[in-house]
Amino acid sequence: MTGGLGPTKDDITKHVLCDYFNTELVRNQEVLDRIQSFFETRGRKMLESNNQQADLPKACTVLLNDMGTASGMWFERNNTIFISMPGVPYEMKHLMSARVIPKIQEKFKLPAIFHKTIMTEGVGESFLVEIIKDWEDSLIQENIKVAYLPSPGIVRIRLTAEGNQLSDIKGKVLRKAEELKTLIPETIYGEDDILMEEAIGNFLKENNKTIATAESCTGGYIAHLLTSIAGSSTYFKGSIVSYANEVKIDALGVSEEDLNTHGAVSQQVVEQMAMGVRKSMNTDYALASSGVAGPDGGSEEKPVGTVWIAFASKNAVFSKKFLFEQNRERNIRRSALAAMSMLRRQAR
Amino acid sequence: MTGGLGPTKDDITKHVLCDYFNTELVRNQEVLDRIQSFFETRGRKMLESNNQQADLPKACTVLLNDMGTASGMWFERNNTIFISMPGVPYEMKHLMSARVIPKIQEKFKLPAIFHKTIMTEGVGESFLVEIIKDWEDSLIQENIKVAYLPSPGIVRIRLTAEGNQLSDIKGKVLRKAEELKTLIPETIYGEDDILMEEAIGNFLKENNKTIATAESCTGGYIAHLLTSIAGSSTYFKGSIVSYANEVKIDALGVSEEDLNTHGAVSQQVVEQMAMGVRKSMNTDYALASSGVAGPDGGSEEKPVGTVWIAFASKNAVFSKKFLFEQNRERNIRRSALAAMSMLRRQAR
Repeated sequence: MTGGLGPTKDDITKHVLCDYFNTELVRNQEVLDRIQSFFETRGRKMLESNNQQADLPKACTVLLNDMGTASGMWFERNNTIFISMPGVPYEMKHLMSARVIPKIQEKFKLPAIFHKTIMTEGVGESFLVEIIKDWEDSLIQENIKVAYLPSPGIVRIRLTAEGNQLSDIKGKVLRKAEELKTLIPETIYGEDDILMEEAIGNFLKENNKTIATAESCTGGYIAHLLTSIAGSSTYFKGSIVSYANEVKIDALGVSEEDLNTHGAVSQQVVEQMAMGVRKSMNTDYALASSGVAGPDGGSEEKPVGTVWIAFASKNAVFSKKFLFEQNRERNIRRSALAAMSMLRRQAR
Repeated sequence: MTGGLGPTKDDITKHVLCDYFNTELVRNQEVLDRIQSFFETRGRKMLESNNQQADLPKACTVLLNDMGTASGMWFERNNTIFISMPGVPYEMKHLMSARVIPKIQEKFKLPAIFHKTIMTEGVGESFLVEIIKDWEDSLIQENIKVAYLPSPGIVRIRLTAEGNQLSDIKGKVLRKAEELKTLIPETIYGEDDILMEEAIGNFLKENNKTIATAESCTGGYIAHLLTSIAGSSTYFKGSIVSYANEVKIDALGVSEEDLNTHGAVSQQVVEQMAMGVRKSMNTDYALASSGVAGPDGGSEEKPVGTVWIAFASKNAVFSKKFLFEQNRERNIRRSALAAMSMLRRQAR
């Protein structure tokens, strides 16, 4: 179970657990010390309600929380294990991976499971399956399961095998993953749940290249994705988010005439945006976006979802028009993915 | 249940449901027409596997999906309702609110529930509770429940009452919400789950003001949040994401001497960033960020989590230093929220 472990009155999980397990709260000194140092290092004042987060049921094994002040709890009764974790997602995930799963693995003899995930982009689920049909059929006799896990612009292909020993199953899964890579090399951008922005970052770092972005419809989202990766300052120099046309002209050097003739959502403008930011920030590569994210602003000629993406290097510029969806959030997301995909395919 | 309704072989939900309900798949003409027009309007090719998404169990009531090609299904047996929805989150949410909940409300006579949510920012959960303790105690006799729902930088306060008729409970909840507003007026930025970026957008629109951002540690995330709101182009002009110092100097006019003397994470630099972008994009307001997002780049003097935020208007500049956390993602998020909070409190 998760949640209800905070310092406010509506947080009743500990009290309910005490009732259920017929036990009482006792103050845990180790937890108290951790809570106090948590507040100290952040220079924040403490209240009595924060101290009370160190009061924990006598009957439980405490699961220490490195990310916050609410401890996890582990109870056992009648051959059943009850686990309580905080509801704040990143605290819960931390407790799950650092405390709960190791404890479960210690307690039970579990069968081995091996997963291998291959990350693809740019090709829809149904089309991928058409290409790799024979390969998919060959998995049955190997007792390997496959799952296609789609999200906008990306399909994760996950292979899974179970057995008594990891050594029995790991080899055959990895062999099948290698086979897959030879079938769809262009679509694969990485493995093991790597994010596209991380794969792009690795590529830039390895090749000692720098990048900048000029963003209209993505509104800074490409820059945000690239800079969400630790260490991105070695390859990402900056971005000019040019929502207003005057910013496109003044900060990116886009031709006012082209803006008037072709509109902001056009090949001419998006290419000038990419070239302009690459030059002004003096980078190896640049990406640019200009489109109609919606819900308003669409026309017959350029409906909502129309997006131009451009990639510029020192000697070349490449651009492409996309028609995405009706939904603003998804159009922004898919535009950013299309831009990163273009970098991956065009950068030499 | 959700998921397993896609066009690939691992999508077995429909087949399992047919087995369980002892029924068979039949092609649904209405669904088929919708799938075909879904592909047509997007200019995408169709495969036979996409047509098969129109094959649905004879025994179910089809829940039409406006957001994708996988239909929902509604079965009834032995006084139990079984509902199957697609696993793609935004498709599932659409089906839940547009098809499933109305059907449940039609079928059952349910008690009335009324929620009112007040959105606060800038004050931690434990401190909020200290201030509004007496108010919270007064809710008991009114039979109103309160929940504190924290996320980084924000606490949602949700009031809930149940009764036979909405008219019995709505009034008392709204009265208590009004009382709350008089107790913590500064911390409240909105109601009913409004996002901070939406509240900021409404403020700018109503006051006919424009904004730009200059971002270092937030890497474009403030611009992304502001532009995630439909219609933001009326008040958001653009952003300069200046990860590299040379971009701070060239594009924002930050003094090279100040950068060398005080470092990029300093009051001098962040104020010059805000003033620089406001001037160059000719806006009423500007926000700027410069900090150590981590995990690397910290020092004794400026540990990971140190962030300077600045707000500039035509006649004034205001800046403040924060000490956030160890986690990069959360530092970026909290910096963006702190910047929007500063705009809300400083803009006149």
